[in-house]
Amino acid sequence: MARVVVDVMPKPEILDPQGKAVLGALPRLGFDLVTDVRQGKRFELQVDGEITAEVLADIDRVAETLLSNPVIEDYEVHVEDHSVSEVAHEAGRA
Amino acid sequence: MARVVVDVMPKPEILDPQGKAVLGALPRLGFDLVTDVRQGKRFELQVDGEITAEVLADIDRVAETLLSNPVIEDYEVHVEDHSVSEVAHEAGRA
Amino acid sequence: MARVVVDVMPKPEILDPQGKAVLGALPRLGFDLVTDVRQGKRFELQVDGEITAEVLADIDRVAETLLSNPVIEDYEVHVEDHSVSEVAHEAGRA
Amino acid sequence: MARVVVDVMPKPEILDPQGKAVLGALPRLGFDLVTDVRQGKRFELQVDGEITAEVLADIDRVAETLLSNPVIEDYEVHVEDHSVSEVAHEAGRA
Repeated sequence: MARVVVDVMPKPEILDPQGKAVLGALPRLGFDLVTDVRQGKRFELQVDGEITAEVLADIDRVAETLLSNPVIEDYEVHVEDHSVSEVAHEAGRA
Repeated sequence: MARVVVDVMPKPEILDPQGKAVLGALPRLGFDLVTDVRQGKRFELQVDGEITAEVLADIDRVAETLLSNPVIEDYEVHVEDHSVSEVAHEAGRA
Repeated sequence: MARVVVDVMPKPEILDPQGKAVLGALPRLGFDLVTDVRQGKRFELQVDGEITAEVLADIDRVAETLLSNPVIEDYEVHVEDHSVSEVAHEAGRA
Repeated sequence: MARVVVDVMPKPEILDPQGKAVLGALPRLGFDLVTDVRQGKRFELQVDGEITAEVLADIDRVAETLLSNPVIEDYEVHVEDHSVSEVAHEAGRA
């Protein structure tokens, strides 16, 4: 059992209203060091068995056809040792 | 100038309909090794100046109050060397 | 052929960071009449055949199990004459 | 106090992976009458005071610059008597 992460972000030349909303709201929190915010999606996939090159190629195909719109978004696939929620649990936060 | 990433995921005990929809659609793509999918958000923040412990503490506060709902989501903050879109550009994909 | 819309919104008692970000960004646009913003999801379903009570009951089940998390979200199902994009086309906007 | 709704949908010619994932997952629920699904966003804005033509023009500007990306999304603004969550409350669902 392994975890594969697919990060999907709007391409640099595509406007990102949600990121812009976050950027616009930051000064009210007294935080003015951030010059840009982009908001995308993160998918955590639990995969049965070993992560071979073939499995990664399959996941790349899934990322391209089901998880992103390649015209307006870029994606990145990587194998992870842990998830956000596991880290949060270890940190006693969850 | 540095990039800080905030990953926000639904807590393990919270139902995730969007992840479930992706999981349910995978078999039609002939891909049956994935046993679970969780969908969250990824924020890429461009930060002016050096990333000190104080800046990271500020971003942690932003993540907790503006980027996530701590009751139903976990988050993780990390400093990155590159973004999804830069990797895609380097790979000639974008 | 008919169009059925499912609106999914965070329950009133659930924090909505994305709505809060939009609210926080509005003053910079010189717009200060908005006192609250909530962000949800809108699904437009194209349905084959007539929309009977049975079909609506089925879509209600889909809304409850696949389109929303009933613990943190409310949903509403209604039959529409037109979609956002059709209106935009008619208005010459698209 | 009034509520104004802004619906934001991907333009018809833009691929919508999230809608496609929902569509692909429907047969597993035994529901095969849906021929297409599009997923967009719904914003509910609480507005102080009367909704004049001027206020609606301002909200239209907010919708165009902060709530949507006009290159890939269409939006529609309308004044509502009630929200999804109020209906859910009245129905005893929330």
